[in-house]
Amino acid sequence: MGHCQQSGRDILDPHLGRYAARTAGMTASEIRALFAVASRPEVVSLAGGMPHLAALPLEALAAQAAQLIAEDGLTALQYASAHGLPQLREQICEVMALEGVTGHPDEVVVTVGSQMGLDLVARLFCDPGDVVLAEGPSYVGALGSFAAYQAEVVHVPVDDRGLVPEGLRAALRQARNAGRRVKLLYTIPNFHNPSGVTLAVERRAEVLEICRAYGVLVLEDNPYGLLGFDGRTYPALHSLDPENVVYLGSFSKTFAAGLRVGWVLAPHAVREKLVLAAESATLCPPTLNQMIVSRYLATQDWRGQITTLREVYRERRDAMLDALEEYLPGCGWTEPAGGFYVWVKVPEGVDTRAMLPRAVAARVAYASGTGFYTNGLGSRRMRLSYCYPTPERIREGVRRLASVLDSEPALAHASAGAGPQRAALRTLAPEAV
Amino acid sequence: MGHCQQSGRDILDPHLGRYAARTAGMTASEIRALFAVASRPEVVSLAGGMPHLAALPLEALAAQAAQLIAEDGLTALQYASAHGLPQLREQICEVMALEGVTGHPDEVVVTVGSQMGLDLVARLFCDPGDVVLAEGPSYVGALGSFAAYQAEVVHVPVDDRGLVPEGLRAALRQARNAGRRVKLLYTIPNFHNPSGVTLAVERRAEVLEICRAYGVLVLEDNPYGLLGFDGRTYPALHSLDPENVVYLGSFSKTFAAGLRVGWVLAPHAVREKLVLAAESATLCPPTLNQMIVSRYLATQDWRGQITTLREVYRERRDAMLDALEEYLPGCGWTEPAGGFYVWVKVPEGVDTRAMLPRAVAARVAYASGTGFYTNGLGSRRMRLSYCYPTPERIREGVRRLASVLDSEPALAHASAGAGPQRAALRTLAPEAV
Repeated sequence: MGHCQQSGRDILDPHLGRYAARTAGMTASEIRALFAVASRPEVVSLAGGMPHLAALPLEALAAQAAQLIAEDGLTALQYASAHGLPQLREQICEVMALEGVTGHPDEVVVTVGSQMGLDLVARLFCDPGDVVLAEGPSYVGALGSFAAYQAEVVHVPVDDRGLVPEGLRAALRQARNAGRRVKLLYTIPNFHNPSGVTLAVERRAEVLEICRAYGVLVLEDNPYGLLGFDGRTYPALHSLDPENVVYLGSFSKTFAAGLRVGWVLAPHAVREKLVLAAESATLCPPTLNQMIVSRYLATQDWRGQITTLREVYRERRDAMLDALEEYLPGCGWTEPAGGFYVWVKVPEGVDTRAMLPRAVAARVAYASGTGFYTNGLGSRRMRLSYCYPTPERIREGVRRLASVLDSEPALAHASAGAGPQRAALRTLAPEAV
Repeated sequence: MGHCQQSGRDILDPHLGRYAARTAGMTASEIRALFAVASRPEVVSLAGGMPHLAALPLEALAAQAAQLIAEDGLTALQYASAHGLPQLREQICEVMALEGVTGHPDEVVVTVGSQMGLDLVARLFCDPGDVVLAEGPSYVGALGSFAAYQAEVVHVPVDDRGLVPEGLRAALRQARNAGRRVKLLYTIPNFHNPSGVTLAVERRAEVLEICRAYGVLVLEDNPYGLLGFDGRTYPALHSLDPENVVYLGSFSKTFAAGLRVGWVLAPHAVREKLVLAAESATLCPPTLNQMIVSRYLATQDWRGQITTLREVYRERRDAMLDALEEYLPGCGWTEPAGGFYVWVKVPEGVDTRAMLPRAVAARVAYASGTGFYTNGLGSRRMRLSYCYPTPERIREGVRRLASVLDSEPALAHASAGAGPQRAALRTLAPEAV
């Protein structure tokens, strides 16, 4: 036969009629189809959020892990509670105190990365059809978890000072008028993923008051809070309203992502349900991993390590911003004061999702903006990560990106040489940042 | 005021109106309230399923973990794919081959213990109101996951040769007549938790045929399959019908539970959805843990380790059965040919749930039978685990249990000295085993 025929395996899924309705919201991220190509060494990946690990004291960590297994292996390799090891929960409270949080160890639940905390909170609170408010754009993994529990994410506008309180009020009014039940405000107040912006301190109380007034619980996701480039930290939302904020924390960005140790801090009654949900999800978090983190916090200069990471990331952020200034004068971007990401606005006519395969072919990868919205926005945005490549690679990646942009059909006859458009980002619009 | 007043925190949950409907099915297990007491060293716990770890080569494992971190730490401590490390997935296929399973590494998804696999399968397939069939009794953690996705578990009778095919047919007919949608048969064919029985080989094809005929997917949970006391393995259900069986495996019982490494083997289309669901659940399983398991399988005599475990557990099973024979002549019990558990039937009038606090006061703990049913049955059953205590402790625990039973009010005037009632277990009844 002359026409192309796919294998039956690709076309037919004999289980198709059996899946739960919630699977309709499960979709692969756009970068994934390109993953095999994008992860080749010759490609500069500005797409991922892989943290920098080279500064870790690997020899010391190796010795400690060996000691834990050799001397305490009957504990380290055994089941433990779903709540998490008591000593680690105490240390987590010390870590959170750096951002003003006063949590009790009993209110902490250790999770397999904070992604699991996110998923458990969605499981506890989201009925199908419930609304979750989130920054527009928002963290793609959160959008996935909310979709998995059939909640609808409604985006709230963001400007360069973070979530816009008036936009939050408007979204809540609109949902109320439409008879919708809003369960959560999901927010990343510090060094936001993907936009890079930070919620202004003077807005924090206002955001919390609005949520209180509308009876909406706040889910604060704070993996980057200690990675401010000037060493500054901001008061956690939890510190301002502990009874109405569930807090997600992580060691993935400040220590070691591959250990998968994160946590949730939640009011007592919520915490009890979280532990039950965690038992269903994984029985318990890995014991060895908890002990490794606990030993690291107890014996190593983890504050010094965070200072080192800040310096590494600041240097990379600077390399990214310098390269953007030099190579992408026709674009706009945010200027993150910490964290991993710059959010870039490309010229009119460019579609970052459509351009991605061409970028990968030109040996540079990014995360196209559409993945960070549930409403189809973001086609003129892209997230560039500076956390993993060296400054030289960042510069080279942005240079390649510029040549890809220059070759975009839509721009072939557009005028070049316009100045940076960061000012334009300050306006409030559906794709504000 | 004169009357007793509880703290507001205990009585009032300000978030009570906010939880998702699925949380209604989340309940703490009965043993948990007693956990703090039951885990005291003076209590003989026959309640838990903690595996025996003392035979593990801890020094070698310690050296390997150290080497992985020191020499390959930038990988071991970094994010990886939600699918699982390719090398480990290949090795998992070799492990499964011991029970006749021919899986492709691409069809394997590494999970944070097989509990996570169970939870993800429930997430993929169970809509609220769907029916899941499961042995009666069944694994409490599975009942929890199905409840978390609002599926209703309907129990299928079990006798000393496992799931009863005629009972399965009857349950399916009944569900069909009631207009209910049956999504899964969840089954533990080998050395069942909690009943200890094994699905007879001659029943396996029949069970699979019935499920095929009714369009029901089979979820085969096989954590104990390599722990048969005579070294015998049974053909996995997956080996007989790979397209209609999703298989759950685990290293928790044959290697190290605290690493939380398990897996799902699923037909290709299901596997793709599982990876997406796993990304929402935890982003990826811990990288270091996967590398530790992979290195262990590649370099250590893991088959010899399993042989050692079989001998340890057989000795403990024998100690348990001998003690039951000696101290509990008025009870009936199953005789497991592998695994961790004996299922005990107590005399009429005894309620194992009501008796549990008195047992703990007498320094012995067990899992009362009601926790393994969703329909209120099991009050005359208890699960005794012989996996963790030494033979001497097992004997002492059963002796204590006998004195607790003797003191039960309902038995104070019952006749003593009746012979063992194992024969009675062969009859088919709602609480058949």
